[in-house]
Amino acid sequence: MALNSYEKLVERMREISLVDAAAGLLSWDQETYMPPAAIEFRAAQLAYFKGRTHRLFTASEVGDWIKAGEDAAFAPLTKEAVNVREWRRAYDRATKLSPELVEEFERSTSMAWDAWVRARQMSDFATFKPHLSKLLELSRQMADSWGYTDLPYDALLEGYEPGARTRDLQQVFTQLKPSTVRLVGRIGASGGFSAKSKLPGPFPIAAQQTFNREVAERIGFDLNAGRIDVAAHPFCTGLGPSDCRLTTRYDENDFTDSLYSVLHECGHGLYDQGLGKEDFGTPMGSAVSLGIHESQSRLWENHVGRSREFWEYWLPIARKHFPSLATTSAEQIYQHVNQVRPSFIRVEADEVTYDLHIILRFELEQKLLHRELAVEDLPAAWKTLFKELFGLELPDDKQGCLQDIHWSHGSFGYFPTYTLGNLNASQMFKTAERANPNLKADLQRGEYQSLLKWLRQNVHQHGHRYLPPDLMKHATGEPTDGKYHAAYLQQKFGAGA
Amino acid sequence: MALNSYEKLVERMREISLVDAAAGLLSWDQETYMPPAAIEFRAAQLAYFKGRTHRLFTASEVGDWIKAGEDAAFAPLTKEAVNVREWRRAYDRATKLSPELVEEFERSTSMAWDAWVRARQMSDFATFKPHLSKLLELSRQMADSWGYTDLPYDALLEGYEPGARTRDLQQVFTQLKPSTVRLVGRIGASGGFSAKSKLPGPFPIAAQQTFNREVAERIGFDLNAGRIDVAAHPFCTGLGPSDCRLTTRYDENDFTDSLYSVLHECGHGLYDQGLGKEDFGTPMGSAVSLGIHESQSRLWENHVGRSREFWEYWLPIARKHFPSLATTSAEQIYQHVNQVRPSFIRVEADEVTYDLHIILRFELEQKLLHRELAVEDLPAAWKTLFKELFGLELPDDKQGCLQDIHWSHGSFGYFPTYTLGNLNASQMFKTAERANPNLKADLQRGEYQSLLKWLRQNVHQHGHRYLPPDLMKHATGEPTDGKYHAAYLQQKFGAGA
Repeated sequence: MALNSYEKLVERMREISLVDAAAGLLSWDQETYMPPAAIEFRAAQLAYFKGRTHRLFTASEVGDWIKAGEDAAFAPLTKEAVNVREWRRAYDRATKLSPELVEEFERSTSMAWDAWVRARQMSDFATFKPHLSKLLELSRQMADSWGYTDLPYDALLEGYEPGARTRDLQQVFTQLKPSTVRLVGRIGASGGFSAKSKLPGPFPIAAQQTFNREVAERIGFDLNAGRIDVAAHPFCTGLGPSDCRLTTRYDENDFTDSLYSVLHECGHGLYDQGLGKEDFGTPMGSAVSLGIHESQSRLWENHVGRSREFWEYWLPIARKHFPSLATTSAEQIYQHVNQVRPSFIRVEADEVTYDLHIILRFELEQKLLHRELAVEDLPAAWKTLFKELFGLELPDDKQGCLQDIHWSHGSFGYFPTYTLGNLNASQMFKTAERANPNLKADLQRGEYQSLLKWLRQNVHQHGHRYLPPDLMKHATGEPTDGKYHAAYLQQKFGAGA
Repeated sequence: MALNSYEKLVERMREISLVDAAAGLLSWDQETYMPPAAIEFRAAQLAYFKGRTHRLFTASEVGDWIKAGEDAAFAPLTKEAVNVREWRRAYDRATKLSPELVEEFERSTSMAWDAWVRARQMSDFATFKPHLSKLLELSRQMADSWGYTDLPYDALLEGYEPGARTRDLQQVFTQLKPSTVRLVGRIGASGGFSAKSKLPGPFPIAAQQTFNREVAERIGFDLNAGRIDVAAHPFCTGLGPSDCRLTTRYDENDFTDSLYSVLHECGHGLYDQGLGKEDFGTPMGSAVSLGIHESQSRLWENHVGRSREFWEYWLPIARKHFPSLATTSAEQIYQHVNQVRPSFIRVEADEVTYDLHIILRFELEQKLLHRELAVEDLPAAWKTLFKELFGLELPDDKQGCLQDIHWSHGSFGYFPTYTLGNLNASQMFKTAERANPNLKADLQRGEYQSLLKWLRQNVHQHGHRYLPPDLMKHATGEPTDGKYHAAYLQQKFGAGA
């Protein structure tokens, strides 16, 4: 029996997913177990697989099948309609760029990354500057090729957060900024959450691993279809419909470091494990955006993991693994894991100051892309805005505009998805609480099924069915709005400030 | 610049090696870290990659390029000549079978393996019998398709041991059999090496891991380009030119179990790491045969690792890792790791009785293939021959003809390569000793470079340059001859017997 166009698409995407998932394993292995000397061959393998899936996806017959799929006019929001819609979006993004532009971008990011590593080491912006200029220029060309109705930044943002628009984000972020700056100031002045603390160790790594696994399984992560390993930079990766792998890193002086990495990555992993297995490799079986993905990780890390309820339940269990916690109270751990303090490095930032780091990058990368800020003026602009938001003098560019890898990859429009994640998490958690008034009591009993069930039903199971703004509307009644996050932070940190 | 045919071949083989090595990682991961629920998707990935490399290799243009490579008449034994010769051999083996036969074989082995698992569990030969008949019939057809001048078994053997011939092996094995049977009998009667012993533990797994790594590095295994992990069945796999991975398993009651698995797999690994990295993915950069590969593993496991010299050097170090060995002598460990005792299961057999297990299988599988033994008579024939070789009554087929996986994979002609490995190891070690009269003294000092250097020069670096019989001639002066192994066993075990 001959396959129709839609079936051919599914078959092709299945093939691509087999190769993609193997490339995923190659990458996972590279970060976890690969012997150091194997790096060169591994890079060649990854480049080969990337090229292969690109060719499989951008082949002209795929365009024909998508067109036929569109002509079939599947009923809106059915699995078939969603898949065809998203394949169209991805196909156009992949094929609207000329091969020359794609190649030049690949070459340029590879050189830019190399220069960035050196520049950061030496804290020397001049070394990175020409590469940043080049990547911005190529990104403008890519934005033009993809097209946009309002701002070039929209075309880039679309790659990470389909359906999101720059102007909407500007509005949301503009509201969030002053209230957050005020809150950070008040916390610092009060000395409450800003007090430094240290937990009484030791925290042997083996005991941390056992405790982390217990927490992960309890909140619902299926270790029969997943793993937790060690890597320098924690991440979560899906290597198949029943193979989701998290990583964390261990600090023998503080077990909460690895725990919060695990909770964060578990949030990603629960989303991954909540997608339809039978739709693996198709849009209906994939996470819809970075901003929604990050909402899941931040929800479990912060709203669940950094709550008083969490420690009321887990402290007695933690004491079994770490007897040195015998005289530490739940309130002491709660304070310890909720220290708020302005700092230079984004990835080390606390829950409150984190979004200020993102707002800074979001503002500056728009200006760079739209030629409102010259590349050579970036370090000074960063310094000024950093002072305004954090009240600190930046000592060098290494701790300023050279700290993040993203721009060296040519990823402009990626940063705002982190804050979108925070905002979405607060909005979802509030809605889940409204739907289940016993939610906090459940968390206090170490009972996470009610929350997970709400997320499964309202977020995970939909895959790409709704674009992020619509998904938020379906799940919470309105698109992303910063007021929920501002209220959450105010309620949690405002009282003690 | 256009590539010539030879360059096109190298390029294609490079592509195949990238995919093959990724499949290797998928398999390694399946045995070591993969979550249980991921098995189904993993099987689909492996099947896809296998099909893909098969298509890449058997494409008609590859045949044209090989023909052109032959016409180029490279000087014999140059890298190019060797590669073309071996690509021809592999291409003919892959393309001489009809696609229908290949498909039927794949389908049949898959069902046979499934039946074998159940048959072994229940110790019920009848469950496996029709599958074994089918695989033998297909193997006869494959042998006919590949062709042979003397016996059908030759055509199958060729797949594991290129250049080896059944009649030659028969002659070698026939000499080995009576002397080994006599030796086993004498050892049993004398009570020397057959005495049971137990080492004083405990042997914590973490300490075993540290000790094993120290041994592996000391004998020359490069852990910067390799790893040692845990798996139910120890193996060694090469995942790239600088990525060789071993596995072992741990018994807390006896540290020598994991140690000898590591030494065995390290022997394979040292061969792998001694191949030309720049030739990876081509015959010149690959191991020449199973019998040569096994010679390396057995040489390090037995000739090095089960020697008195080994324990004279390593016991003081082992005591640092396992304080419970304080009063154990090197001679006691030597006796402990050299216990000889007839047993039913091949993979648990000692150095002396091991070859009897192989000789049994070699004789029976020839008869099965050549229709000199009916499949239904296999259990009885096994029982009879086992009694003759081991002097023991077989209690059931689970411990007899159903114990090994090989026939369920349709692998006939594989078993003799194990004993070839033992014979080659003894012959090589003897030659290396002749070349370096201080060899045993070196081993006593924990100095392994002289031995490794000899193996690198005489075996590893050649890749596929010489077929196994010629490689043995170049390395030791003559093709495989059982007298060296018989003499080695007699010298080691005969005195105490």
